[in-house]
Amino acid sequence: MYIPDYHKNGNPEEVRQFIKANSFGVLVTHSEGKTLATHIPLELEYDTNGKEFLTGHIAKANEQAKHFLRTEEVLCIFNGPNAYISSSWYQEEEVPTWNYIAVHVYGKLKILDEAETMASLHRLVDTYEAHSKHPVSLKNMSPQTLKQVKGIVGFQIEITDIQARYKLSQNREHDHGKIIEELEDRDDPGSHAIAKAMKKGN
Amino acid sequence: MYIPDYHKNGNPEEVRQFIKANSFGVLVTHSEGKTLATHIPLELEYDTNGKEFLTGHIAKANEQAKHFLRTEEVLCIFNGPNAYISSSWYQEEEVPTWNYIAVHVYGKLKILDEAETMASLHRLVDTYEAHSKHPVSLKNMSPQTLKQVKGIVGFQIEITDIQARYKLSQNREHDHGKIIEELEDRDDPGSHAIAKAMKKGN
Repeated sequence: MYIPDYHKNGNPEEVRQFIKANSFGVLVTHSEGKTLATHIPLELEYDTNGKEFLTGHIAKANEQAKHFLRTEEVLCIFNGPNAYISSSWYQEEEVPTWNYIAVHVYGKLKILDEAETMASLHRLVDTYEAHSKHPVSLKNMSPQTLKQVKGIVGFQIEITDIQARYKLSQNREHDHGKIIEELEDRDDPGSHAIAKAMKKGN
Repeated sequence: MYIPDYHKNGNPEEVRQFIKANSFGVLVTHSEGKTLATHIPLELEYDTNGKEFLTGHIAKANEQAKHFLRTEEVLCIFNGPNAYISSSWYQEEEVPTWNYIAVHVYGKLKILDEAETMASLHRLVDTYEAHSKHPVSLKNMSPQTLKQVKGIVGFQIEITDIQARYKLSQNREHDHGKIIEELEDRDDPGSHAIAKAMKKGN
């Protein structure tokens, strides 16, 4: 991703928190002239040596599953908020722009076998059900329901590069007050989230 | 994009409205083993014959600009809301899932010359400044400010395919009431937007 230095987030811990908080990402693969993308949860996990992976699964019927057999490098996109920034809020004349947060993770994809895939599904459900009033668990589900694992392909991505762009008007410090005020004044969650990130001082 | 029939949005007008409302998309290109993605506004526009294009620009310093010279097909991703759907809300036993709306547009990219790029910037600013209290216009900006056009590459994408996935629990009609209720109960704009889309009956 093209990232001018002043938009780079060099805080590894914060970037990992972002990936976990925005885990519903986009898996992009390319094979034989075709780029395919699938919107799925991509879970940041660690092996016993502390090595990082992204874990996920897609439907076997998804054409992208064929890419898994021959693709060398995959791209995972994690989208944060975005907001249009009107230059009418600036003190000096300038063209308008867009603020946003996005993280790109490159890596090598390895297909998981059925037992590994099932184990990853257990962890996935436990993670997201932690916030449920009446959490379900795969541990309590019937073999009939769990048979669905046969319809999916699980995978693990060995991370080779993480790129984090936090485009938050870093080059216009003196306009921050007004930009934040105007963003907060909008009826739009993206604008509010960008204002919050700007206040945090990214 | 893998889209089961019941998640397909076959309403071209609604899909185009979605693209316009979620125009801050992701341009994905691939060249020589590398997939690159840039987060930018991608504007749905029409020529005098009613032919559809996506128009945008990136920094010349962006490595992706080199892809423009040799890529055959590009992918534009437009992200809508997403929300985790706990199967604890269902009447029957089932695994949890994620609802989301996403549109993928494939097409052929053509680089615009400087005059065409400048014209596209004028339209872009006019579109987004329409919502500003004190709209700025490139028409009133100094040659010095407008010189920035020299630092960008404008492009137009001839659309070859539009794929719209509206994953909104269409296969669980009898659980809709409870799913919507629980989504609305969450403190999360994505969940609220998914609830709204489900109510609309997509």
